[in-house]
Formats: sequence, C-alpha cells, structure tokens
Amino acid sequence: MSALLNPAEFEAALRAIGAERYHDKHPFHRLLHSGRLNKAQVQAWALNRYVYQAHIPIKDAALIARCPDSALRKAWRSRLADHDGDDTRPGGIARWLKMTDALGLDRELVTSMRAALPGTLFAVEAYVRFVRERTLLEAVASSLTELFAPKIISERVEGMLANYAFVDQEALAYFAPRLTEAPQDSAFALAYCIEHATTRAEQESVLEALRFKCGVLWSMLDTLYFAYVDPAVAIPGAFQP
Amino acid sequence: MSALLNPAEFEAALRAIGAERYHDKHPFHRLLHSGRLNKAQVQAWALNRYVYQAHIPIKDAALIARCPDSALRKAWRSRLADHDGDDTRPGGIARWLKMTDALGLDRELVTSMRAALPGTLFAVEAYVRFVRERTLLEAVASSLTELFAPKIISERVEGMLANYAFVDQEALAYFAPRLTEAPQDSAFALAYCIEHATTRAEQESVLEALRFKCGVLWSMLDTLYFAYVDPAVAIPGAFQP
Repeated sequence: MSALLNPAEFEAALRAIGAERYHDKHPFHRLLHSGRLNKAQVQAWALNRYVYQAHIPIKDAALIARCPDSALRKAWRSRLADHDGDDTRPGGIARWLKMTDALGLDRELVTSMRAALPGTLFAVEAYVRFVRERTLLEAVASSLTELFAPKIISERVEGMLANYAFVDQEALAYFAPRLTEAPQDSAFALAYCIEHATTRAEQESVLEALRFKCGVLWSMLDTLYFAYVDPAVAIPGAFQP
Repeated sequence: MSALLNPAEFEAALRAIGAERYHDKHPFHRLLHSGRLNKAQVQAWALNRYVYQAHIPIKDAALIARCPDSALRKAWRSRLADHDGDDTRPGGIARWLKMTDALGLDRELVTSMRAALPGTLFAVEAYVRFVRERTLLEAVASSLTELFAPKIISERVEGMLANYAFVDQEALAYFAPRLTEAPQDSAFALAYCIEHATTRAEQESVLEALRFKCGVLWSMLDTLYFAYVDPAVAIPGAFQP
C-alpha cells in the first residue's frame, strides 16, 4: 500500500478490474450471445440467473438496513423499486420471469429455486452475506460491476435476438430499463466510493470488493457451463431440460 | 411427508443420496484418480481443496460452540484433534500441507488461500455457515458424506500412486488416518441422526443436509474442472501453474 490514488487513478483501477474479470469474458456468455447454445441451455441459464435476480433487492435492503446515513438510504431505495416494481411499472424480477415464461419454464420451478445448481446458490449467498457483513463502503463497492453492465446487456440483447428463434423483444423486456438504471446506479456508487475511500487501505478494500463481486458472477457461469455445456454431466437434483 | 422411516429405511435413504450425488462420480475425480491430469492440474486440486481442509476444524468447533449437550461436545472434540493434531501426531491440515509441499507448491501461496478459486471459497463458506446456522441435527447430518469417504480415499491413493510419478506414499500421508477416522466419525453421526430425527420432517431435514453437503463437494470440482481442465480458461487472480 502506498499513496492515496487520485480519483482518476482510482476509477482507472476499478475499470481495469472489469476489463480483466467481468463475466462478459466467460466462455458461457460468448456461447449465449453468439447463438451457440440450444434452448435447454438458455433455459438453464435463465433459471439459475433467476436466483441472483431474486436476491438483488434483498441485498439492497440489507445495505439500507445497516446504513446510518439517511441520504445514502434514500438514494439506494430506488434500487428496491427497480427490482420489485412500483405502481407504475413491473420490477426486474417480474420482467425476468417474463423471460423464463417465454422460454417455456414452469414458474414454480423457477421461483422455488429448487432446481438451481448448488454453485449458483453458494455464490448468491456469498454476495448477500458480503453486503450484510463487510464495511458499508465495501457493500456499496460490490455493486460496481454495474459499471460494466451496459456493454454486456447490449451484446446480449442484440445477440440473442439475432440468434435464437425462441427469444423475442418481449422475452428480453428485463434488459431495456437496465440500460438506464445501471449507469445511474453505478455512477452514484462510484462517486460514493471515491468520496468515502479516504485512505489507500479503504481504496484497496473497494478494489477487492469489486474483484469479489466479479468472482460471484464468474463462478455462477462456471457451474452452469460445466453442468449444461461441457461435459454435460447430469447434476443430481438440478434442473434437467 | 408420510410416516417415520425405520432406522434401516432411513440409512438406506442416506446411502442412496451418496450413490447419486457423492463427488466420486464427478469427472474431475475420475481424471484425478486415473492419472489423466498433469502435475499442474493436481496442484490446482490440492491448493483449492486446502481451503476445505483448513475449514474443517472451524466448522467442527462451530458445531461444538452451539451444542448444549456435553456428551455430544465431548464426542465431537476428537475431530478437532484429527485435523489440528495433538502432541503425538500431526493433524489433517499439516498432512495436507505435506502433499502440497511434495507437489512443489509454495506454502504461503497455499495457506493464504489467495490463489483459490472464488467458487471454492463460496462453497466452503456455505458449509461453515450451514453448520453454524441450521439446526444442530442438520449440522451433524452435514458431516455424513464421511459415510462414503473410505471408498473414494482408497481409489484415490491407489490411483494416484499408480499413475503419478510426482506422488509417493509420503505425499499422500493425509489419507491413511482418514481410513479409520472417517468410519468412526460417520458411524457416530449416523447413530446420532437416527436417534434424534424423531419425526419424518426431521428425517427429511437430515436427508436434505446430506444433499446440501454433496453439493458443496461437487461444486468445488465444477469450478476446478472448468478453470483447469476444460476449456482451461485463465481465471483472473486464481492459481496459475
């Protein structure tokens, strides 16, 4: 640990982590976006990723629940509405279920999460616990993967629409609002981390939190790839297309 | 849920879970035991599995720490000595480090766990938390994978000695004591679960705890296989042979 990074250096260090570790580089996503998965494999992705989606407002509420700063609580609250919805619009979870519907998955199978892979559950659990138990600064920082979300969402929507006959714009309704929500959220979280990481050690904790979160997203694809793509071993108890 | 299973039925149901889900069936283990991994891949296995080994006495102490029953605490205490050692013999962790030494791995790299895969850490963390937070009966039940350990240990030792020039009996010193410790431990835990699961719902919770634990061991191999065997993507930050 040496001197404090200035804001530009700090942001560059965060972005370098994304360039190295964000899950857009995972082979599973390359297959997904380029149309090289079959429908059953896309189902497995959507069903497992639901576990992550369903826990986002839980981890956001956990952050609010431990936050002594009214302004931060207020700012963070919009994330709850984004994922759980409000009177004017469905939330991200409901939109994700539109996709699993369109893919022909049974809702109860999806929402019960009983067919999700253990590795999915462990990664999502690790994320929620991290937000509950680490410092508030690290909890905020672990959301910073959203800095890299717009690019992967654009690639995904474009690739999936072009390559899969069983997917249409409505099935992908989850993603369009995320193209505006994610940049707002990540800009806020980035500014918060820049302002509140006032020592090099705190800056390093922010960088480490982002690495941790990249590992969450990455390991979810590891277990998915292995179970459904290659060598396609039947995982006992897991979703079987 | 229907009627209570009698002890024979209950034990048969537990053994059926092992037959279906224990990690001896994972392709990574088949490769490991049959000599089809290279030294670097065996190193990756030993380094990641160290994380699990290092947490065994932590989870056992967590069980003792929450246990109001002096007799159970006393019986469980031998597991601490098995893994942390006593004045007369090295424990399992020290013996595991003999293997990582023999494989040419740097001790600090292994014991710091900083090169372990995120998926390894998440699975081990999920196991420790399970023992801390579920019912005492479920905590005991999650150890029941040891029912199936002697078979995999025999296969492993025999297969590794026959197939890898870089492994000898001394490197595999971890395993021999486990051939007597594991059956004693699992016999005790099985008897405890049979005695204390006095409703069908409790019996089901025992079965589910064993399924959970099989998922822990299995998902550790998922992430290992994917990172080091096929397609051998370099996981950022992970151990690189």
